[in-house]
Amino acid sequence: MNVITDTLNRSADTDSTLIPALAERWSPRGFDAAAVIDERLLTTVLEAARWAPSASNSQPSRFIVARRGSDDFATIETGLMGFNRAWASAASVLIVNIAELETEGKENRWARYDLGQAVAHLSVQAQHEGLHSHQMGGIDTGVLSDAFGLAENHAIVSVIALGVLADVATLDPALLERESAPRSRKPLSELLISNA
Amino acid sequence: MNVITDTLNRSADTDSTLIPALAERWSPRGFDAAAVIDERLLTTVLEAARWAPSASNSQPSRFIVARRGSDDFATIETGLMGFNRAWASAASVLIVNIAELETEGKENRWARYDLGQAVAHLSVQAQHEGLHSHQMGGIDTGVLSDAFGLAENHAIVSVIALGVLADVATLDPALLERESAPRSRKPLSELLISNA
Repeated sequence: MNVITDTLNRSADTDSTLIPALAERWSPRGFDAAAVIDERLLTTVLEAARWAPSASNSQPSRFIVARRGSDDFATIETGLMGFNRAWASAASVLIVNIAELETEGKENRWARYDLGQAVAHLSVQAQHEGLHSHQMGGIDTGVLSDAFGLAENHAIVSVIALGVLADVATLDPALLERESAPRSRKPLSELLISNA
Repeated sequence: MNVITDTLNRSADTDSTLIPALAERWSPRGFDAAAVIDERLLTTVLEAARWAPSASNSQPSRFIVARRGSDDFATIETGLMGFNRAWASAASVLIVNIAELETEGKENRWARYDLGQAVAHLSVQAQHEGLHSHQMGGIDTGVLSDAFGLAENHAIVSVIALGVLADVATLDPALLERESAPRSRKPLSELLISNA
């Protein structure tokens, strides 16, 4: 492994000029456990989610926002599974991402899709602000739904960690090795069923 | 209605400083029916989708990309419903957004959510490039699945139109009135189930 100093920089391997917040976004596990996100900045990041598009402007995205040190933060930690437990406690903020599956008795078939868009907007804005984010699907949604008393039509889909990158010198070697794996994606041609 | 000249500008009504591609993104119906998207630019927009995050890097997003004038474009038009038929034909590109619901026999519970993220990244990059996008849920997914011979685990979720804004002077008055409605969102407080 090469020696890596300071924080990691893992831009996407693409010839296209993506906007920096997209190209430089990746999902670290090494967060600075002392970093606190400014409240105005956190509001800006949430505003980005708020202004995301949704089917017929139905706005099915809901969030539980918890700052490190709060009871809610500790509750969210109890719902994390596997290796997520090892690193997410150093995040500044954990957000539970929730899709409202039906509104006024009518199923919203785009609820999860639109939640994904809202979280994407949130994470792009966060990246732009110098924060990093890491989304987790490895969560016990039953534990979290019970703990927060969610209604049946509120489906937990993911948890996103927001925070500030730790200096790699402070990271556990096992964590650092995972952090240093190259980012990879399928070639574009595999994603295009047709291109005419 | 106020007189609006040139193209429309409908930034989000927020006190936060969102990145321009998020703040200025909206979903127009008045596309320039003569505009053609440069191929390199289209690749860049698709690359943005490619580099979006997904659960365990499963990359469940698939796309059918069709340029105006192609047979595929005409096929996609046959699957559009309601008012979408009235305006989407002027888009430069229509893309069918597809979630791969299972991979190697295993259900991917985040497929629609991650597709939403990929399309969000695509639309943000498009906006940055001076293009506009409009996502449609009002589509006949059965018609489109049959027409493109999609596998059962490939679920069509939406169609996104990409194009260049038309000069409003060229728009049908009925269309222009819909274009001019103010963008609105629920207050942030309604989206936050808890904030601690």
